[in-house]
Amino acid sequence: MNDLAAPGRFGVEVYRARLERAAALAREAGLDGLVVGTGPDLRYLTGSRAHSFERLTALVVPADGGTPTVVVPRLELASLTDSAVAELGLPLNDWVDGVDPYALVTRALPVGARIAVDEALPALHLIPLADRFGTTPILATGVLRRLRMIKDDAEVEALRRAGAAIDRVHARTGEWLRPGRTEAEVAADISAAIVAEGHTGAEFVIVGSGPHGADPHHEVSERVIESGDVVVVDIGGPVEPGYNSDSTRTYVLGEPDPVVAQRCALLEAAQQAAVDVVRPGVTAESVDAAARMLLAEHGLGEVFVHRTGHGIGLSVHEEPYIVSGNDIPLEEGMAFSIEPGIYFRGEWGARIEDIVVVTADGCESLNRRPHGLTVLPG
Amino acid sequence: MNDLAAPGRFGVEVYRARLERAAALAREAGLDGLVVGTGPDLRYLTGSRAHSFERLTALVVPADGGTPTVVVPRLELASLTDSAVAELGLPLNDWVDGVDPYALVTRALPVGARIAVDEALPALHLIPLADRFGTTPILATGVLRRLRMIKDDAEVEALRRAGAAIDRVHARTGEWLRPGRTEAEVAADISAAIVAEGHTGAEFVIVGSGPHGADPHHEVSERVIESGDVVVVDIGGPVEPGYNSDSTRTYVLGEPDPVVAQRCALLEAAQQAAVDVVRPGVTAESVDAAARMLLAEHGLGEVFVHRTGHGIGLSVHEEPYIVSGNDIPLEEGMAFSIEPGIYFRGEWGARIEDIVVVTADGCESLNRRPHGLTVLPG
Repeated sequence: MNDLAAPGRFGVEVYRARLERAAALAREAGLDGLVVGTGPDLRYLTGSRAHSFERLTALVVPADGGTPTVVVPRLELASLTDSAVAELGLPLNDWVDGVDPYALVTRALPVGARIAVDEALPALHLIPLADRFGTTPILATGVLRRLRMIKDDAEVEALRRAGAAIDRVHARTGEWLRPGRTEAEVAADISAAIVAEGHTGAEFVIVGSGPHGADPHHEVSERVIESGDVVVVDIGGPVEPGYNSDSTRTYVLGEPDPVVAQRCALLEAAQQAAVDVVRPGVTAESVDAAARMLLAEHGLGEVFVHRTGHGIGLSVHEEPYIVSGNDIPLEEGMAFSIEPGIYFRGEWGARIEDIVVVTADGCESLNRRPHGLTVLPG
Repeated sequence: MNDLAAPGRFGVEVYRARLERAAALAREAGLDGLVVGTGPDLRYLTGSRAHSFERLTALVVPADGGTPTVVVPRLELASLTDSAVAELGLPLNDWVDGVDPYALVTRALPVGARIAVDEALPALHLIPLADRFGTTPILATGVLRRLRMIKDDAEVEALRRAGAAIDRVHARTGEWLRPGRTEAEVAADISAAIVAEGHTGAEFVIVGSGPHGADPHHEVSERVIESGDVVVVDIGGPVEPGYNSDSTRTYVLGEPDPVVAQRCALLEAAQQAAVDVVRPGVTAESVDAAARMLLAEHGLGEVFVHRTGHGIGLSVHEEPYIVSGNDIPLEEGMAFSIEPGIYFRGEWGARIEDIVVVTADGCESLNRRPHGLTVLPG
């Protein structure tokens, strides 16, 4: 992978440009700076995969274009080794147990500064920061999503690799999904295949068979899969440098009941209807509406119980959310799922999910497996 | 396990009592209520292992003793199934995508209410809550730690089971820790043993060999372990209903260098010195000081680079922290680690860690493996 400077990150210039753009957007938003704890925003801005909870690690980005600094526990300094922090020349303010790390943040940005924090920053750190700064920070989402939502070419390429890898797993699902096996057994095989096909891990594996498919958030269980079951398989994980796949297909073990087949055909049409409206300038909620309207016209509006999709990148779920009420216009480079589903409590469910990337005049689907109900031996 | 009402939780009366006590402590603290998102505090109060990020799930506990309510996304209702929420009769305010979940919180507690939130609540939810309530919440730590810090008999019994289970893993470490194997290979075997010995998962496995032992937060690597290496093995995970083990021992592959042996003997004395001062009424920081002073007297103060310990229970790291500046007096039922370490950059490191529970006149150690440098075949 030539575009990677080190395992797990891009070259230093990518992060330098992102940091400069983050500062500029913060300035435009009338902020004095950003405080970003560990998590996907820190990875986006510096390549760091550090994670910490009770000891504060934070990137402080002044909006005036001054050099960002990193507050980090001395004993977690090594957590920054794989990041671009050293190559970027960012000063480190390391601290030891017993020292007040929040004072190191107010050394970088003055008391009274208008700051924004990343979404994942826990209350444990946010409340002391609000106290020191004398004002409640706002969410940096408005600033950082401007960057993170619009994927550049290298990011789209990573998402393409992720999509192709998860397609290869779906292509092999018939090897494992058979009557007489438990959901957990099938999921274990799928997890191994997710890694074998090029992901660094299996982030999630949903195998929802029969009535379990009617719960959109069912994961796996010891239920033994039966002949005739409809089975929702929703799987994904990250490929280097951290970009995720997420694709759902619905399988049936044996010839489907005609009502199931007919409803799954409508679901396929709803998913396609949503894909068809995607292009720059269309709002996120209108993509949701396209799928929802088609299902509602056929009496299936009530059983489509969740939003149509979510953005994807370094996080499996991120902006933009494809949901009623979200009127942001789509832009070229946005990547998100389109995943309508239908759920019949106690009976069965189905969902079809592709990741798409907005192009100049439509969108590119990163998942290419057949969308219809896939019939496996019963 | 007779004390468990369902896999993974205690009987309903345990949670009823905890909720009542949480409300009473909130009232005493001058609060109007608590808002608790998913995480260890929610598990402590309701037995729920739900986890969510961008969709708000929150327990709202009015301080006036009124019935707590749960705000939960409709499609994550199933995540509460294993909890005591239904048996407790707590009303559910479920919501669907597109609805404002924060308005459901302000329906349970009025705008202007003085609320406290759990430490783990992400900024994503905390900032909108601060906005709706018109005031920045404070941390519920001061209220909830009064409960969570003091373990009852059933909790201590769970911690004892966890301690015995991890001791069995340390007892078997010689089966896997050998020259010529990588840290990652050894860690994989240890992970499997952590589960085989009764944990529900391996929460963390540190195998720090040779110079890697000098980094307290090193996890594992592809480094091939050599004859003569000093190796830090710091391992743990949860046993049902969610209480964690955490124990460190230091091994050497072959007869140790006399300087290593002598410094490890001092470390053992420092760990014992800290254990010896534990009893009700002694402050947390004085336990830290006992270990630190002994090491400093022998010129090893500078290489003991972290706090002496952390509380443990449903979280691996929780209150009380055994650190300089923490002057809370210890009380019977508190459980925490005592884990001094010495680190020689680029060379080697050592750490000894037991979990102890404060008793009426001292403490009970939950880890019983020999504390000295354990010599394995080189």
